Amino acid sequence: MASHPYIPRDLILEDYVPVSLAQSTIVGIYGIASVLVASFIWLISGRCAKLSKIERLLMCWWAFTGLTHMVLEGYFVFSPEFYKDKTGHFLAEVWKEYSKGDSRYAGRDAGVVTIEGLTAVFEGPASLLAVYAIATRKYYSDLLQISISLGQLYGTAAYFVMSILQGDNFAMSPFYYYWYYIFANSFWVWIPTLIFVRSWKKICAAVASHSQAPTQKKHKNR
Amino acid sequence: MASHPYIPRDLILEDYVPVSLAQSTIVGIYGIASVLVASFIWLISGRCAKLSKIERLLMCWWAFTGLTHMVLEGYFVFSPEFYKDKTGHFLAEVWKEYSKGDSRYAGRDAGVVTIEGLTAVFEGPASLLAVYAIATRKYYSDLLQISISLGQLYGTAAYFVMSILQGDNFAMSPFYYYWYYIFANSFWVWIPTLIFVRSWKKICAAVASHSQAPTQKKHKNR
Repeated sequence: MASHPYIPRDLILEDYVPVSLAQSTIVGIYGIASVLVASFIWLISGRCAKLSKIERLLMCWWAFTGLTHMVLEGYFVFSPEFYKDKTGHFLAEVWKEYSKGDSRYAGRDAGVVTIEGLTAVFEGPASLLAVYAIATRKYYSDLLQISISLGQLYGTAAYFVMSILQGDNFAMSPFYYYWYYIFANSFWVWIPTLIFVRSWKKICAAVASHSQAPTQKKHKNR
Repeated sequence: MASHPYIPRDLILEDYVPVSLAQSTIVGIYGIASVLVASFIWLISGRCAKLSKIERLLMCWWAFTGLTHMVLEGYFVFSPEFYKDKTGHFLAEVWKEYSKGDSRYAGRDAGVVTIEGLTAVFEGPASLLAVYAIATRKYYSDLLQISISLGQLYGTAAYFVMSILQGDNFAMSPFYYYWYYIFANSFWVWIPTLIFVRSWKKICAAVASHSQAPTQKKHKNR
């Protein structure tokens, strides 16, 4: 018999220590921490420059997603034995709980670790750079947001496709499948898509007006 | 005993049919076909518009890489039993031969199939669109090239990182490891990197001049 609650039942996890915090505590701490981060960025961004509400919302998103990538996913990537944790470390609890929706995390699936690694190491710091780039109106701001959003979309797509190819049987129940695996990850599908479309349009408009400018000059010179 | 030549030796490939074409034939056909495609694009692009040599070279690259993604990698993605092929089908021979450098192809590793799937389905057609976008000077041309290049870089990075996590023991010999696995894939590291840097600079310059333009207008209006 397996000594853990995860699916598939033949997954081997030696010295597994059960999750000790309640689901509501784990989700609650992550939720409250996220709201605090977003509120802090919203307040600060309201003071420091003439930023539109959409730009301030984007800064909140990039701060939230950047810290999620670096802290939560970064911990997972560099803690292969989190499921043995006895100390009740919050981040270990997060991944023990999330593994109920996708046991490939506890099982250390190479594909999942790879995607999380690229996300934590590259997209995490890049997301925090995006907060700064929006606040200071850098010329590369939209380009950076497009790049990170594409990376997030690629990662999420690869994450779902791999699961399907592997049999899509890693959740303890439909509850965990739909709330943890589908619903929680869906934010990294629709938000990057919206940002990608917005920044794509903005850059195309800028390039269009830039390439018309020299033409007008030519006409004037004639 | 395994009935195939690949590493690791405990990989199970039922009904494996050995590669029938010579290595020089397989590499030669791919090489000649690629040169023909590039030459064709080079000649056509020289006639139809005022394109710089770099733009014409980029068109050659996008045509080559787009067809490689769609034809070679597309065949792999949708032919899970290529290693059983008895007909000497060229594309089956390509992957039987390449599996000497990375047996995860013959072994149908979920991560490799996922990356190849995203590459064949999204990046392949997008690369051919890039040929058209450069030729017709579309405003989204550099943005499209950045997007595809990032996808290629993400895919190649994930491909190498997953292999390391899985033990990096999928090549029959150092010869195949360095020529097939390292050298052949390296083109999809350094070429997308160069294109990414070039297009990034071009877009930043356009956005910079675009955001300066309204400021000048304001001054005039005062």
